[in-house]
Amino acid sequence: MADAHRMSESEFSFQVRAVDPRCKARRGVLRTPHGAVETPAFLPVGTVASVKGLEVDQLQRTGTQMVLANAYHLALRPGEEVVSQLGGLHRFSGWEGPILTDSGGFQLFSLAKMTKVTEERAVFRSHIDGRLLELSPERAVAIQEALGADVAMVLDHVVPLPNHPEAIRDAAERTVRWAERSRRAARRSDQVLFAIVQGGLDPDLRQWCAGRLVEMEFPGYAIGGLSVGEAPEQMYATLEATIPALPEDRPRYLMGVGRPVDLLEAIRRGVDLFDCVMPTRNGRNATAFTDEGLLRLRNLQYERDPLPIESGCPCVACRRSRGYLRHLFVAGEMLGPILLSIHNLTYYQRLMSAARDAISEGRFEDFYEAKRQGWRIGQGGSTLVP
Amino acid sequence: MADAHRMSESEFSFQVRAVDPRCKARRGVLRTPHGAVETPAFLPVGTVASVKGLEVDQLQRTGTQMVLANAYHLALRPGEEVVSQLGGLHRFSGWEGPILTDSGGFQLFSLAKMTKVTEERAVFRSHIDGRLLELSPERAVAIQEALGADVAMVLDHVVPLPNHPEAIRDAAERTVRWAERSRRAARRSDQVLFAIVQGGLDPDLRQWCAGRLVEMEFPGYAIGGLSVGEAPEQMYATLEATIPALPEDRPRYLMGVGRPVDLLEAIRRGVDLFDCVMPTRNGRNATAFTDEGLLRLRNLQYERDPLPIESGCPCVACRRSRGYLRHLFVAGEMLGPILLSIHNLTYYQRLMSAARDAISEGRFEDFYEAKRQGWRIGQGGSTLVP
Repeated sequence: MADAHRMSESEFSFQVRAVDPRCKARRGVLRTPHGAVETPAFLPVGTVASVKGLEVDQLQRTGTQMVLANAYHLALRPGEEVVSQLGGLHRFSGWEGPILTDSGGFQLFSLAKMTKVTEERAVFRSHIDGRLLELSPERAVAIQEALGADVAMVLDHVVPLPNHPEAIRDAAERTVRWAERSRRAARRSDQVLFAIVQGGLDPDLRQWCAGRLVEMEFPGYAIGGLSVGEAPEQMYATLEATIPALPEDRPRYLMGVGRPVDLLEAIRRGVDLFDCVMPTRNGRNATAFTDEGLLRLRNLQYERDPLPIESGCPCVACRRSRGYLRHLFVAGEMLGPILLSIHNLTYYQRLMSAARDAISEGRFEDFYEAKRQGWRIGQGGSTLVP
Repeated sequence: MADAHRMSESEFSFQVRAVDPRCKARRGVLRTPHGAVETPAFLPVGTVASVKGLEVDQLQRTGTQMVLANAYHLALRPGEEVVSQLGGLHRFSGWEGPILTDSGGFQLFSLAKMTKVTEERAVFRSHIDGRLLELSPERAVAIQEALGADVAMVLDHVVPLPNHPEAIRDAAERTVRWAERSRRAARRSDQVLFAIVQGGLDPDLRQWCAGRLVEMEFPGYAIGGLSVGEAPEQMYATLEATIPALPEDRPRYLMGVGRPVDLLEAIRRGVDLFDCVMPTRNGRNATAFTDEGLLRLRNLQYERDPLPIESGCPCVACRRSRGYLRHLFVAGEMLGPILLSIHNLTYYQRLMSAARDAISEGRFEDFYEAKRQGWRIGQGGSTLVP
């Protein structure tokens, strides 16, 4: 099962170290030219080369090992050649650890205006200034090579759900053809390119798409096009259909997901990597994650609350009272969003760390059940579900 | 000249350690229950118990030893009794070093709506929600005792400049009477109360006001009502008129000032303490202080600039390129204001540290001239003057 050094470049490897005996959860290590990442891993989102409001040392102290940046956003502003001229993403941002860049496929679907996808390329208008722009698989690779992340993603074709079966099939087939074009365009030896499985909620289409991509032998595989409006159970079922079609010895990355419970559900099904804006976005909106569910810190009930967000949490936000944190939000102070982003990322990273230990010790299912009980899932549908 | 332990409480002392032989610049140590402050010292402004965007450890790394908070703002939001219930300002904010609170006199003049001052009290409307509120000398002391800073300020009567001589005299006389009422109201043994000299730009009135306050034997004296629109030379002349009327063995605090050059001009005239929003406010507006003047980092000229703001600066912002910092501002990322606030505070604290060393070594005037030359002051009125 453990099978190191199967990735395309010697500086890269992925090794599965342990698989839980009662589920498909696995613990591993992804090595990159900028360091190793213990998996399952959660990647905070640094859209334009900054995890909003956090200095690099604050980000490190959350337990973060790898961050995500967005090729779409960086190509628009400041432009990938500016980043390249200023030394590439690592030097530019000051984050010297592993970085993954998304290709822009998701932003073409979610953010760009009037996107038109043809076989050759996507044409769209910038969400910032309306400029007419285009993105092809080759251009997405070129942008990401200029940015210089450790892991780049192929350009995929994402469609909203629910959708016509033909539209979903068409996008999945295009994603396979674009993956081949992306692979051929890639030049950098210090960067690996992961493929992205599409196919909506159709298990056959997902398996077909995964099969075609696996034939091309990518060093890693993402599952894309989820968390776009479907029910959690549909997402879990799609993971169950897709993951068996992916090789054991390559990392599996569930893009853009999600809630803590989604992370554990995906880990049980064999996912290794995650990214999501949820911990930072919720943090900016005064919502804190805890083992007992969400705290909405603007609530008047916390005005004089001397307790930390969560006792036992080692983050700097938890050296303050809920009353102080509430005050920062009510007064519109930047430090509120910063401290809650730190807490929430620390919460996610501690969850991943505990999940890894549980896998090593063969008790992931118990860990998962205990967390669910804390979050009160399956106990009457409380709104405290994170 | 050196004369320790003359302050009202044994946990407090102010000791002058060195006076420059060629000017009135002096180096000293202000001791408080929460630690010592080397003077001349610059206090960053943490209006509502947060220096905007900065975590406590980031603030410490700028070289900051003492911070200022505003009684007016905190009394409005979250209310001083909330701060008190949550352990007082130190525990509330997480800043365990020395803290000074301003009384609210300046905010009554600058921020509150429809302020009416009578002998008994000021009546005004909250700038947040228009509530009718009042502030008397006794209430200003009670608020500050509830907040629990190390140093509190008497309530003073601030008037705009220029103004009628009678209005300035009336406010200065009221400030003296209110200082006496403030002093009588003070109860906490772990907090000292500084007086504030008013009197506009009238040297005789300043001296009279200082004389009356000195008779009351306060442990420290502030010079207020400056940096309200007068020319720098008028401010410097007012300092020259006022400071000789203040005792050598008590700290002198110039409130709300200012530019780096103002700090050095005031230090030459014998000032020990400063506070100002300038480094943090300018930082939030993408303006950085350097020894060669101001950098406006939104400027296109910095788009691809690989240099740090200032070479040799040890702050985290200076581990990045100007190009990255510009990108953060153009993209509207919170990290831009944060990093520039860090840089600017580091600049101010390094300036204070270098000033202290220059005083110890009897070369403050040379230091002052070298800084002025770097800032290009007196060389044709360049706009680079910080």
